[in-house]
Amino acid sequence: MVEIRIPKIAVILCGCGSMDGSEIHEATFTLLSIDELGAEYKCFALDKPQGRVMDFVTGTEEPTEKRNQLKESARISRGKIQNIVDLKVNDFDALILPGGYGAAFNLCDFAKLGENASVDPEIKRVLTQFHEAQKPIGAICISPAIVALVLGKSAKPSITIGEVNDPVAEKLRKLDCEVIASQTNDCVIDIKNKIVTTPAYMNAKRISEVRQGIAKLTAAVLELVT
Amino acid sequence: MVEIRIPKIAVILCGCGSMDGSEIHEATFTLLSIDELGAEYKCFALDKPQGRVMDFVTGTEEPTEKRNQLKESARISRGKIQNIVDLKVNDFDALILPGGYGAAFNLCDFAKLGENASVDPEIKRVLTQFHEAQKPIGAICISPAIVALVLGKSAKPSITIGEVNDPVAEKLRKLDCEVIASQTNDCVIDIKNKIVTTPAYMNAKRISEVRQGIAKLTAAVLELVT
Repeated sequence: MVEIRIPKIAVILCGCGSMDGSEIHEATFTLLSIDELGAEYKCFALDKPQGRVMDFVTGTEEPTEKRNQLKESARISRGKIQNIVDLKVNDFDALILPGGYGAAFNLCDFAKLGENASVDPEIKRVLTQFHEAQKPIGAICISPAIVALVLGKSAKPSITIGEVNDPVAEKLRKLDCEVIASQTNDCVIDIKNKIVTTPAYMNAKRISEVRQGIAKLTAAVLELVT
Repeated sequence: MVEIRIPKIAVILCGCGSMDGSEIHEATFTLLSIDELGAEYKCFALDKPQGRVMDFVTGTEEPTEKRNQLKESARISRGKIQNIVDLKVNDFDALILPGGYGAAFNLCDFAKLGENASVDPEIKRVLTQFHEAQKPIGAICISPAIVALVLGKSAKPSITIGEVNDPVAEKLRKLDCEVIASQTNDCVIDIKNKIVTTPAYMNAKRISEVRQGIAKLTAAVLELVT
């Protein structure tokens, strides 16, 4: 009898929308690619407030509104979501972080403090444990900044955020990352560190390119699962 | 010189999330398929409150919270959205309505009143004008209920909502629709009326099936563009 083992991927969300949470298309394409490749996903989020709530029509902040990351993330995952404190690394083969401004504002304060930012302790725990267990980590759009903050100095990973000459790239180099250029429809694979990154909406012109880049990232993450 | 005309598709959103607005995966896959097929989309929504706001973790209503359909829909469309009162049918070749509970609760009151429901006047105007102009209409998940309410008695369309023996199908038959069974990864094409429907999360077991059904629906809608 042949036992088929289905790889299990943990996906970290941080709200619902590019300006204050997870980028919706990136998160959706992550779940799609995992399913298409015959793997399974579970979504996790911090049970904490978002750093801000935006009006997406005007592009301005809603000064008095509060939203919870877990509740808003559950919109993307259709209600099935767990508090990240319940994420046990032993239960999963890999980790993927979609992007969106929430990744740099809710999961860490990279959006405010750049290379001097700190990362939410639970996010730091999860990334460190996956890396120490030699399980692959995929990071999309601005999420490689979290990888850089947690693992940059120790692992010196090769990552992409699309362009190499912009201010974000410079901040990541200060965290000892090698920053590599990537088209939206492609990804960068650091085989040694098992870290895969794709720029998505950091430099996307079309939604279909974002889809292609995330499909490649997810396939590469699954190939790195031992 | 050959002039290449790019088809333009209007997409109607109604919030951000399956339980109180547009189903996020369905809306995202609609935009993706349109882009992949070389067409262009513009998103529209009513500048009106949602009928309810849900807590997606508990599945219960947030009794005091109010959200606006246009603002929440703009999360899915990354800020680019227009009030549906500005939708001119002459500017577009086709119309697609993703699903989600908002389609049956924000755009009409089918969720409460079934075959006796009424449809928001602007939504009714847009559907009527596209149909009268013989431009194709795609409807996903529960959105065929809106098509049935607006066009059922006059056009007697053939549509799907997945199953044929459930209470929703019975309500649509009372509106003079022929209800046809469909797998999630397929769609039903009423060539005479230029109406294309796919069940999506009405009967989906996997996100990748939803993606396939919406890809087929979008291709069929574009083939019906004259």
